Amino acid sequence: MRKIGFVTSNKHKLAQMQIVLSAYGVELEQIKIDYPEDKEKNMEEIAREASKNLAEKLGRELIVEDTGLYFEAYNNFPGAQPKFVYNSLGFKGIFKLLLDENRGAYFKTVIGYCSPGKDPKTFDGQMNGVIAEEVLLPEKEAMPYEHIFIPEGYAKTMVEMDVDLKNSFSHRGKATRKFGEFIKNN
Amino acid sequence: MRKIGFVTSNKHKLAQMQIVLSAYGVELEQIKIDYPEDKEKNMEEIAREASKNLAEKLGRELIVEDTGLYFEAYNNFPGAQPKFVYNSLGFKGIFKLLLDENRGAYFKTVIGYCSPGKDPKTFDGQMNGVIAEEVLLPEKEAMPYEHIFIPEGYAKTMVEMDVDLKNSFSHRGKATRKFGEFIKNN
Repeated sequence: MRKIGFVTSNKHKLAQMQIVLSAYGVELEQIKIDYPEDKEKNMEEIAREASKNLAEKLGRELIVEDTGLYFEAYNNFPGAQPKFVYNSLGFKGIFKLLLDENRGAYFKTVIGYCSPGKDPKTFDGQMNGVIAEEVLLPEKEAMPYEHIFIPEGYAKTMVEMDVDLKNSFSHRGKATRKFGEFIKNN
Repeated sequence: MRKIGFVTSNKHKLAQMQIVLSAYGVELEQIKIDYPEDKEKNMEEIAREASKNLAEKLGRELIVEDTGLYFEAYNNFPGAQPKFVYNSLGFKGIFKLLLDENRGAYFKTVIGYCSPGKDPKTFDGQMNGVIAEEVLLPEKEAMPYEHIFIPEGYAKTMVEMDVDLKNSFSHRGKATRKFGEFIKNN
């Protein structure tokens, strides 16, 4: 297995991506350090800068991952800041915002990869869907928006799906497979 | 007049603060450069770090200013990101969030001041009030939240007040006077 660092504090992301990457001979090693993100830049720019800076600083090949969520009814919201919005508004505030609005939404993941001395690369994936009208399985441990996001073509929320099904079509699964293909060929 | 740099791209803030600081013998010189802010830190930490880094980098004494807005009904929202929230949700989304909720809110300004080789200092000011149920004087050019914020003890929104009245009790006016007093005595 080829060991590649993954700078994240999120164990759900780590577990989801490891399952996909095992098929490509990659073992992710979690690196828990904070790094600055200028949330006014776009996700590709953030991923490129962060992976480059961290690869040089830590002297190893590694990835960063960032996922944004976009409601059709609003402009770039919650955008690159789903965590801030969930922590501030909760499901209650999010449902208030979407009452009588278009409930269309999409997730987008960008993975930034870099090894020291090289240029960074990015890999993206998107998943369209709608925001549910209630919180499904609130007691199940999952990322917050998985409780309210119904992917296009399905009749249930992410939280009701097993990880292999999610990985087969999710934004993060798509981006992770693109990254896996790249690693396999390089 | 003592010339002090003010790193901001916001001409409204510059004009408001210059009026207050003239009485303390200070002339603000606008410096238009971007600097990173880690919005997960608190406002004092952000102001301290930014003023220190910029003073050393530019080799001159200067201030930075950051203003947050806090709705009682939510947790730390819009918080340090009023611009992101207004740009994303607009007045329509903000009113939706506050429908049938506690409309109490407060503004908080923190000014960070530093001169090269010295430790940074901060000066703060707060203003309590409520969020109006409609947008007042939408056609008048002003900072967005001035159109919907009614200060405690007043029956009109900020946008309906002249700048001297606003400066006499506003978060930014209070913080600016504290800074002016410090400069006068140092």
